[in-house]
Amino acid sequence: MTPNQTTGATMVNAFDPGQPGALDPALARMIERRGRLLGPAYRLFYQTPVEVCRAQGTRLYDSQGRDYLDAYNNVVSVGHCHPQVIAAVHAQMQLLCTHTRYLQDGILDYAEALLPSFGGRIGAEGHLMFTCTGSEANDLAIRIARHHTGRNGIIVTEEAYHGNSELTAGFSPSLGRGARLGTWVRRVPAPDSYRHDPAALGHMMAAAVTRAAEELARHGDGLAAFVADSLFSSDGIFTTPEVLGPVAAAVRAAGGLFLADEVQAGFGRSGERFWGFQRHGIDPDIVTMGKPMGNGFPVAAVAVAREVVAEFGRDLRYFNTFGGNGVAIAAARATREVILTEDLQGNAQRIGTLLRAGLAALAERFEGIGDIRGAGLYIGVEMVSDRARRTPDAQAAAAIVNGLRERRVLISATGPGANVLKIRPPLVFSAADADQLLSTLEAVLRKR
Amino acid sequence: MTPNQTTGATMVNAFDPGQPGALDPALARMIERRGRLLGPAYRLFYQTPVEVCRAQGTRLYDSQGRDYLDAYNNVVSVGHCHPQVIAAVHAQMQLLCTHTRYLQDGILDYAEALLPSFGGRIGAEGHLMFTCTGSEANDLAIRIARHHTGRNGIIVTEEAYHGNSELTAGFSPSLGRGARLGTWVRRVPAPDSYRHDPAALGHMMAAAVTRAAEELARHGDGLAAFVADSLFSSDGIFTTPEVLGPVAAAVRAAGGLFLADEVQAGFGRSGERFWGFQRHGIDPDIVTMGKPMGNGFPVAAVAVAREVVAEFGRDLRYFNTFGGNGVAIAAARATREVILTEDLQGNAQRIGTLLRAGLAALAERFEGIGDIRGAGLYIGVEMVSDRARRTPDAQAAAAIVNGLRERRVLISATGPGANVLKIRPPLVFSAADADQLLSTLEAVLRKR
Repeated sequence: MTPNQTTGATMVNAFDPGQPGALDPALARMIERRGRLLGPAYRLFYQTPVEVCRAQGTRLYDSQGRDYLDAYNNVVSVGHCHPQVIAAVHAQMQLLCTHTRYLQDGILDYAEALLPSFGGRIGAEGHLMFTCTGSEANDLAIRIARHHTGRNGIIVTEEAYHGNSELTAGFSPSLGRGARLGTWVRRVPAPDSYRHDPAALGHMMAAAVTRAAEELARHGDGLAAFVADSLFSSDGIFTTPEVLGPVAAAVRAAGGLFLADEVQAGFGRSGERFWGFQRHGIDPDIVTMGKPMGNGFPVAAVAVAREVVAEFGRDLRYFNTFGGNGVAIAAARATREVILTEDLQGNAQRIGTLLRAGLAALAERFEGIGDIRGAGLYIGVEMVSDRARRTPDAQAAAAIVNGLRERRVLISATGPGANVLKIRPPLVFSAADADQLLSTLEAVLRKR
Repeated sequence: MTPNQTTGATMVNAFDPGQPGALDPALARMIERRGRLLGPAYRLFYQTPVEVCRAQGTRLYDSQGRDYLDAYNNVVSVGHCHPQVIAAVHAQMQLLCTHTRYLQDGILDYAEALLPSFGGRIGAEGHLMFTCTGSEANDLAIRIARHHTGRNGIIVTEEAYHGNSELTAGFSPSLGRGARLGTWVRRVPAPDSYRHDPAALGHMMAAAVTRAAEELARHGDGLAAFVADSLFSSDGIFTTPEVLGPVAAAVRAAGGLFLADEVQAGFGRSGERFWGFQRHGIDPDIVTMGKPMGNGFPVAAVAVAREVVAEFGRDLRYFNTFGGNGVAIAAARATREVILTEDLQGNAQRIGTLLRAGLAALAERFEGIGDIRGAGLYIGVEMVSDRARRTPDAQAAAAIVNGLRERRVLISATGPGANVLKIRPPLVFSAADADQLLSTLEAVLRKR
């Protein structure tokens, strides 16, 4: 964690240019050049930032040809530089790259293929709207939710992240104290299965949502939408299933919409189901998606129940110059096809289970591992300084993340205590990759 | 124009599904399917929408193999499917497509090459920050401007368009009455050179800005930024140079920042200068860019003076998952190189001059042409029902746009009166293309 004492701006696993240590001179020059050209709002990962030049599958390579095992990047869901995605993008680039105000087949074929996967009302007769980023998807989703409900308020979890636009940053508390939350935002605790009875989480969270909605009503905002990432990534990764069922009921009782932010959890990541919200047995009003949708090509979307977007479509319109252009659609189609044909959801389930078993074995030997959570290939390992008290140990997490990085294995950390190892590899992560991650982690833990 | 009488939601040159006329059955089925899958917020162009399958240079082709002359799409600035952009994207797709929290050379090389083009403070020691869309760039720019000034208010022109996010839609009056403007927004008239003395426009506009800033101060918002597209695209295309100099002085006097929105005017479009604001001799605090930056690949950016973003970088951070990824940068680098090596700015100037001369010749024969404006390859032709009174003639503009479309030449219309023909072709538009556009326009005008 790089805390800025003046303002409270923090980011877990950020390079701290104030403590450059003994950086290689070439790296130091590159970092200086980067600061000069890109400015002060950019952050790098790790105590010693990683330079990358090329990648393949689950491997990144630097300019010296050294390979890094990628156990972090969920965007390249089907693996870095997957030939089928490259071929699809290249073929479409040679044909046509234009916007949605002309008729094109590809976007319709893709929407027709994807919509049934949501089930419920969206699956039956919902719509798919295209943006370029998850932030844009969440921004649009809230515009739709507010227009439909005529209300303003948003409820999120305490350390949620939902985007970088003015609107979405306004309900993304994980951006730190420097980023002001909207006056129309209320926060509820994430379903912390490590510190509470997992069976009680749903009703605890639902009760908190009901109280927050009452607060929003008292302030005249009312509840437009509850928004959650079903894996609670920036809250510390909480993956207990069925928690959001009672929450959705509380949201509806308060007249709000349920927005499932699937930017992290979607497209098979959770192993068990194609969409993370489906692990909770709910029927959301709006679903947003992004990161892995085009395996790195900028494409994201909003799936919305028909009745929810009806007034928005009547009173307003939505156009996104690049959103859903032919090439974005080609990338999304190929990525979805690879996920299905290579059974990457199944792989996420299998390798995720393997990884968690290996981590559990390490936990028997290393006291610092307090909890292991996860679904599919989204895994959180909570480091603690005291198992009985479950005291967050950010230093241990940082040491492990950077120790792995020195051994060329890339993960990160998350959570309000910055003490949860965040393991989120491409979905093509193999059993051998899992072995390498586990054995390297063991070496790092042993050295501490 | 498709006015929605209930809500005032309008869009110039939108297909009206309520008046489908005698559409080809296959086209009607595709439109029905589109509505079912993408929902009611999407719009199509033209009375008879255009289906497209492939494109090359200045030509689009439908599934019947019919060719359309593209005199509208500014995104594909270097021409549809330019081989150099395709090759650059393909090469990078095979190498690496990842985000900015690892060190990469390409993004730095691009920023280093582009920044000097802005001149002034940004050229000297400014920064370049990457997003995926122009909306995201304007949204981020305003976040930066508000953080820097500690103020809230934004001044735009009466029919401005600056984006589709909640924040940017809030200062995009051209979205229509269904889209609420922020309480912190004030509007000033665009510099209408057809109805006012061009020499007086700068001081008229500056005086309006001063009054608007006083209003914002009285309401406690104060002025964070004045935002303008230097070609005033959605206001009706006004291209008198030097107008924004006095405006910038008024903005500074009120303590605000000048945000030059170059999403439309940038990258050589205006012919005379690489950036549209440079035709006004000003030194903006922030410049935003997008559409043509990657010739259709989703990439956009904010260029900002060093001192303006210093606090934002200290107190907050900015990360955009796809913004400035390796492939986006490859597309942007290739596009910029083509603009320079093929002298497309010069071509815009030459062909734009040719087109305006041809239009002026038509105006001698057709009374309905009230005014011809433009810079480079951004041209507005104002249609009027009465030359002496300069009465906007939206019907004439719609008839011409759709008449050209029937003859497979694509333009659109703009302006508060929906009566300004919007001619904005790829910058590779040739003299032969210009001839075809002019002779087809003549045929359409003659038939009326």
